[in-house]
Amino acid sequence: MSELFDPVLAAGAVRAEVSDAAWLRALLDVEAALAAAEADAGMIPREHAERIADVCREGYFDIAEVGAKSVGVGNPAAPLVREITAQVGGEAARFVHFGATSQDVMDSAAMLLAKRALEPLLEDLEAGADQAAALAREHADTVQAGRTLLQQALPVTFGFTAAGWLSGLDAAARHLQTPRLAVQLGGATGTLASLGEHGPAVLAAFSRRLDLTEPVVPWHTERSRIAELAGALGELCGVIGGITRTIVLLAQTEVAEVRERGPAGAGGSSTMPHKQNPVAAIAAQAAAAQAPGLVGTLLAAMAQEHQRAAGSWHAEWRPFTELFRCAGSAAYWLRTSLERLEVDPARMRSNLGATGGALLSERVTTELAKDTGRLTAHDAITECTKRAVAGEGELADLLAADPLVSKHLSRKRIGRLLDPATYLGSARVFVERALAAYDEGRGSP
Amino acid sequence: MSELFDPVLAAGAVRAEVSDAAWLRALLDVEAALAAAEADAGMIPREHAERIADVCREGYFDIAEVGAKSVGVGNPAAPLVREITAQVGGEAARFVHFGATSQDVMDSAAMLLAKRALEPLLEDLEAGADQAAALAREHADTVQAGRTLLQQALPVTFGFTAAGWLSGLDAAARHLQTPRLAVQLGGATGTLASLGEHGPAVLAAFSRRLDLTEPVVPWHTERSRIAELAGALGELCGVIGGITRTIVLLAQTEVAEVRERGPAGAGGSSTMPHKQNPVAAIAAQAAAAQAPGLVGTLLAAMAQEHQRAAGSWHAEWRPFTELFRCAGSAAYWLRTSLERLEVDPARMRSNLGATGGALLSERVTTELAKDTGRLTAHDAITECTKRAVAGEGELADLLAADPLVSKHLSRKRIGRLLDPATYLGSARVFVERALAAYDEGRGSP
Amino acid sequence: MSELFDPVLAAGAVRAEVSDAAWLRALLDVEAALAAAEADAGMIPREHAERIADVCREGYFDIAEVGAKSVGVGNPAAPLVREITAQVGGEAARFVHFGATSQDVMDSAAMLLAKRALEPLLEDLEAGADQAAALAREHADTVQAGRTLLQQALPVTFGFTAAGWLSGLDAAARHLQTPRLAVQLGGATGTLASLGEHGPAVLAAFSRRLDLTEPVVPWHTERSRIAELAGALGELCGVIGGITRTIVLLAQTEVAEVRERGPAGAGGSSTMPHKQNPVAAIAAQAAAAQAPGLVGTLLAAMAQEHQRAAGSWHAEWRPFTELFRCAGSAAYWLRTSLERLEVDPARMRSNLGATGGALLSERVTTELAKDTGRLTAHDAITECTKRAVAGEGELADLLAADPLVSKHLSRKRIGRLLDPATYLGSARVFVERALAAYDEGRGSP
Amino acid sequence: MSELFDPVLAAGAVRAEVSDAAWLRALLDVEAALAAAEADAGMIPREHAERIADVCREGYFDIAEVGAKSVGVGNPAAPLVREITAQVGGEAARFVHFGATSQDVMDSAAMLLAKRALEPLLEDLEAGADQAAALAREHADTVQAGRTLLQQALPVTFGFTAAGWLSGLDAAARHLQTPRLAVQLGGATGTLASLGEHGPAVLAAFSRRLDLTEPVVPWHTERSRIAELAGALGELCGVIGGITRTIVLLAQTEVAEVRERGPAGAGGSSTMPHKQNPVAAIAAQAAAAQAPGLVGTLLAAMAQEHQRAAGSWHAEWRPFTELFRCAGSAAYWLRTSLERLEVDPARMRSNLGATGGALLSERVTTELAKDTGRLTAHDAITECTKRAVAGEGELADLLAADPLVSKHLSRKRIGRLLDPATYLGSARVFVERALAAYDEGRGSP
Repeated sequence: MSELFDPVLAAGAVRAEVSDAAWLRALLDVEAALAAAEADAGMIPREHAERIADVCREGYFDIAEVGAKSVGVGNPAAPLVREITAQVGGEAARFVHFGATSQDVMDSAAMLLAKRALEPLLEDLEAGADQAAALAREHADTVQAGRTLLQQALPVTFGFTAAGWLSGLDAAARHLQTPRLAVQLGGATGTLASLGEHGPAVLAAFSRRLDLTEPVVPWHTERSRIAELAGALGELCGVIGGITRTIVLLAQTEVAEVRERGPAGAGGSSTMPHKQNPVAAIAAQAAAAQAPGLVGTLLAAMAQEHQRAAGSWHAEWRPFTELFRCAGSAAYWLRTSLERLEVDPARMRSNLGATGGALLSERVTTELAKDTGRLTAHDAITECTKRAVAGEGELADLLAADPLVSKHLSRKRIGRLLDPATYLGSARVFVERALAAYDEGRGSP
Repeated sequence: MSELFDPVLAAGAVRAEVSDAAWLRALLDVEAALAAAEADAGMIPREHAERIADVCREGYFDIAEVGAKSVGVGNPAAPLVREITAQVGGEAARFVHFGATSQDVMDSAAMLLAKRALEPLLEDLEAGADQAAALAREHADTVQAGRTLLQQALPVTFGFTAAGWLSGLDAAARHLQTPRLAVQLGGATGTLASLGEHGPAVLAAFSRRLDLTEPVVPWHTERSRIAELAGALGELCGVIGGITRTIVLLAQTEVAEVRERGPAGAGGSSTMPHKQNPVAAIAAQAAAAQAPGLVGTLLAAMAQEHQRAAGSWHAEWRPFTELFRCAGSAAYWLRTSLERLEVDPARMRSNLGATGGALLSERVTTELAKDTGRLTAHDAITECTKRAVAGEGELADLLAADPLVSKHLSRKRIGRLLDPATYLGSARVFVERALAAYDEGRGSP
Repeated sequence: MSELFDPVLAAGAVRAEVSDAAWLRALLDVEAALAAAEADAGMIPREHAERIADVCREGYFDIAEVGAKSVGVGNPAAPLVREITAQVGGEAARFVHFGATSQDVMDSAAMLLAKRALEPLLEDLEAGADQAAALAREHADTVQAGRTLLQQALPVTFGFTAAGWLSGLDAAARHLQTPRLAVQLGGATGTLASLGEHGPAVLAAFSRRLDLTEPVVPWHTERSRIAELAGALGELCGVIGGITRTIVLLAQTEVAEVRERGPAGAGGSSTMPHKQNPVAAIAAQAAAAQAPGLVGTLLAAMAQEHQRAAGSWHAEWRPFTELFRCAGSAAYWLRTSLERLEVDPARMRSNLGATGGALLSERVTTELAKDTGRLTAHDAITECTKRAVAGEGELADLLAADPLVSKHLSRKRIGRLLDPATYLGSARVFVERALAAYDEGRGSP
Repeated sequence: MSELFDPVLAAGAVRAEVSDAAWLRALLDVEAALAAAEADAGMIPREHAERIADVCREGYFDIAEVGAKSVGVGNPAAPLVREITAQVGGEAARFVHFGATSQDVMDSAAMLLAKRALEPLLEDLEAGADQAAALAREHADTVQAGRTLLQQALPVTFGFTAAGWLSGLDAAARHLQTPRLAVQLGGATGTLASLGEHGPAVLAAFSRRLDLTEPVVPWHTERSRIAELAGALGELCGVIGGITRTIVLLAQTEVAEVRERGPAGAGGSSTMPHKQNPVAAIAAQAAAAQAPGLVGTLLAAMAQEHQRAAGSWHAEWRPFTELFRCAGSAAYWLRTSLERLEVDPARMRSNLGATGGALLSERVTTELAKDTGRLTAHDAITECTKRAVAGEGELADLLAADPLVSKHLSRKRIGRLLDPATYLGSARVFVERALAAYDEGRGSP
């Protein structure tokens, strides 16, 4: 959380949902829900639970002070409980945090935070997917050079390219829509010993109160939920990383097929006024690039022992928060980049001519292969194409002059075969499939 | 793949499913299925497809030679196709690999490999979970010191500990049971251009033939499937890492609550004949520790551009294979460790006495708190406990002598409160919940 | 940067050295030094450089505003330059940031930050090493069970254990003492084109002014310096992770050989008043556990293209700052843990008896091997030891009763061989070597 | 180690140096050196040491069998020692592995392996650096568009670009030239107890025999040496990743400034005969991309406890070996790519014209700034450039028509200012500095 860097590195609405204030709010909500649940279960007087809830809702808590006092025990829940207890006062004070342990509160708060942070994250993601869908629809017939290994290959359409983006965003969003977000409640070692017979009832009520899932057993050292969340956020970042890498490449000076048209000042360079940098896509990549390390740290922290881990649990807090900040920023910038995207169909078409027809040599190969077999055709066409690339003539002419080729294909046929716009295969079908799957909420299996 | 290290580092049946031979088999199966699918769609003569299938099934292919020839194009599919084509010969040769690109074959083979490797992996995992369930059931009443931050805390049962293990293994297994394993088929740039009108029909038939999912669109640079698989395998390794870390700790000389009783020679030390090392748990940890880095590498490799990535795609092969090898090894060794596990209930009970009753001071706190409020009680009990730990007397005596405590609790009551066996809260309920969820295939939400 | 979590997760004095304010200070210092260097080279009037320096030193700059304005260009240097320029005003304003590009300023500031942050980091590290040295010296004769694979093995001394810690801290400190911290100055594409003939002179003066190294060439996309720094900080965290893991294990209830004796409130548990958690060691581990992911992110970000990278450069800022925060916290907590460490030699001695003499069975093996060969001896002693561990008798008795053993060793000799205190090999020599190497600043090669 | 994938993923001569056979060789060399060192110290008869050395040098050891037998103890050293002992036979058999523990042998072998693997690695690296130096020298005057954020910016020379590559390779090589490669020898818990008084003497002789450094203390759980090696290899991979990423970008169809001209078949596409993929650079990137995860795994594995770690030590073997394989492959392919590199100066020059002069707008800004101040100039030039990019006219004309600009600069002066070839700043100086630093073995500080 940095005022200097966050506007670029942690952009969007997710940041606020995992801020210090959001953590404090979640911790307080958890303590209030715990007392309420204990009242629900008939363990503690309702009025005391309400008093606790009042303090948690309306009391003032100094984040820095809570933080400073956390060094003694190693987590902020403990000093916060002390402070709540002091503010509650009287009889009710006895029931603050009753039967719970610090990790119950921290973990439940983290799950609450995740739930809250996923909302704006999914919103940005959906807006990005909508934009990708719109691009796919609008440019279903916009011919573009397909590129493999950064070399022009067969033609595609830009709509087809965007349909691939849509499919990835859709997959990432679907993965994030059903996280396993469960409350944590077990007391000191997970047995809920101090709740006596009421343990299960309180656990159920606590889950209802927080609108989180009720786990079968406490999960203080069973961190599969954290791992699944991390994996899904990592996947999202990876998908965004791929899309924005492509955008940045398409926006290169020499390619210039897309450009980000942002508000005044966006994408300008301090020293090179002619540049129009795809700043949003670049910021998305910077954010997405954080995910592998953060996911790795969370996975490594799963080696948690006994009933509460010494260090591995504490090691989760930073990457958990950071991963949300980075994924949120990636989603925000991806959405922004797609919303700013200006597509240049004319440039796409003219770039297709860069190889003088060589782009469609595979098509000639395929056609020729019907008569000669693939390998023979491949070798013949390769030879002509290399000569064309080396400047010995137009590919069509060289092919027409080749004895093997001319034996099977006429000059006119060769010309038709080398026309990019007529060789798009199932590109349109795929665009329609991607749009339909998205519209119907099916995703791609 | 190392004859020297694999028996420890890549143990179990998964290794063979991702070996060079398995990759070759999968690549050949994919080529056969492609030809068959094209015959299904009426594109190529059935007899040619069958000829191709025969060669793929029965031909001899030299792995080292295919590998050696792959340096020219950068992947082994291309030279393999050449070799298949040569062996097929005649008319049918024209239809080998028809309309496909190398990545179609590599990716489809990877998915096939994943499907095949998941079988033994899930088998070991299930066997491990069964064993954890048996331990949970058998030791539902075996009292054990709960430990937080590696310090003894409130009592639990070993059954409760094992129920936590079960819950984690169950979650990891469920996550792995429904991977998104789809075929890849798009041709040079994903449009299936060379299949003409037949693209969708061939794609559907190809998926049926390989019993893999049909994707909505080609996913050459949309790697969410790889990411989800990686995340799930990473989660599995994390869960296993946590369990086996606990086992190794419980097996410490000074704790000695469990021990691995392996076959002759297992766990011995070359220089210290008295040691009985928990070798299986240690090997599981070594395998599990590889996952964060491998998952991170696969997530980072998702930044794939255009229609085929230059380098990021190639960067997947090693960690994809390795992650299966490591997860397989972790699952194998976890199962082995649990099967070898010898539990010592007497030692568990005697370890509970290590703190002279201090373990249950929270219980006294809770009881006292009913009269004094939690904070006051906490402070009073902390004081007595510190004196007990410092050797000033038995905790029960010190408590009985404390003016505040003795005002509210009798000596006899204090004694009962400090008896570990009577303070297990919902431990048994949780064991039953975990077993029921596992037996009914529900898992923990 | 979190008021809630930083006191635990980013403790110590390093945090402030990489804060927003520290970044701002460094950026301003860089701009001032640049102008001064240009005056040194005779490019711009001295008075203008002084005016710029005055503003950089005394002006007020709103961090949040600079941050907010950075979204347009993607880095905070650009809006800061605008603000400095506005504040400088007049003739001098023309020379603010003259000839430089944003990355020049950001990278040079990062190097300055690193230099400043390394000071308190190395101070904590040295204090930790001093403490390790004191423990090694003080406990050179304190016998302790050596433990391999968490099983008791041959005896060591605690001084020997601490000498190993010292050696690691020493190595990490030495690695951090000579970082390659160079200024960055190249202008838009690294050629210093707008400085005309003055480029090299300005570069040299700029380096002198900032007391940073002068690079041979600009390094906008050559990030070996970042990688080396990251590697050294990662190494430090790893060393600390190992030491504190050992401390946490030695502090276990069942081992209890060391304990952290912190100020009132430190290490207490909110629900278990008898516990004395090694909070400092735990916090050190949590901090150290962040390093592998952060180092990985910085290494992955090295794939920087052309003359300035799109995204990979931006991806460095967060992990660069975080890695310092985590390493600083790890060093602070390590130092704190060692300073709090209370050693219990009596408990170390009594733990040595846990295996009834089996600990020294290797010694008997070695002795016996002189007569029988190692393998024969090994097998015989293993047999006896297993029976001893299984409770069939004292090891000494069982050995004396063994025909092979008794043929070569008397009962009395066996007794002497099984006395731990007399079998410490070169432990003392190694302690002295480690202390001497540290005192003489040699380290371990 | 995969016959199918290694030719691409683990190319070059390093692979063989870390193969199973190389590990076996190193383990045997270590055992031989140990016996020899013990003879040197007068501990064991010379003839027995020689007998052991003979067996280690000439005996046949079945790698697969050793591997298979390692599952009992968890590492291959133990079964290998048994096998050596059996082959040695007689009196000498008693002295095989005398006083050592498995980790002594494994760690010393790993260091030996590292030393051997670094030779061909540094050779490839040096050849790559030589090639970069040659390119820098040859193309010191070859004008090229500098590119920042993948947009054309100010001109550079290709020699300047290559000088940056040289500087990075030089730094990486220098970092790898002085690794801390020390023997490991401590016996069961590091005290060398079974060597009696001879410990230090044997340790010194052992180091001499293996030509490795003598450590101050055993480092069984002090893994800074592994971390430093990992960091240096990670740095190398990062440097190579950056260079080859640039090469792949320069080789794009639309940029076409360089191309890899490999042997027949290299870089061809199975389906697109016209393509000339930069296969070597791509393979280098795939190899380099493995490093962050592998380094992270090695750093995470540093958390090693007591006198030998349970799992973390074992977790090193795979990433240690793999990191060498990947770094070796990256270095091999980098060298190959640079050796194949064909530079197209004409295309470089023509690409410079892509923005119709806008590239040098900064130069006009700088010139104008002398009269108007940077900000005013910047805004004016930006305006004209945007109009030029929008197609409203040639930049030179628009500038000449601008009232502010024309007030200070003549039409002719504007024309000269927009000529790329005359605005290369210190590019040539930097090339010379990089070459000199490389030639004199100074590197860049």
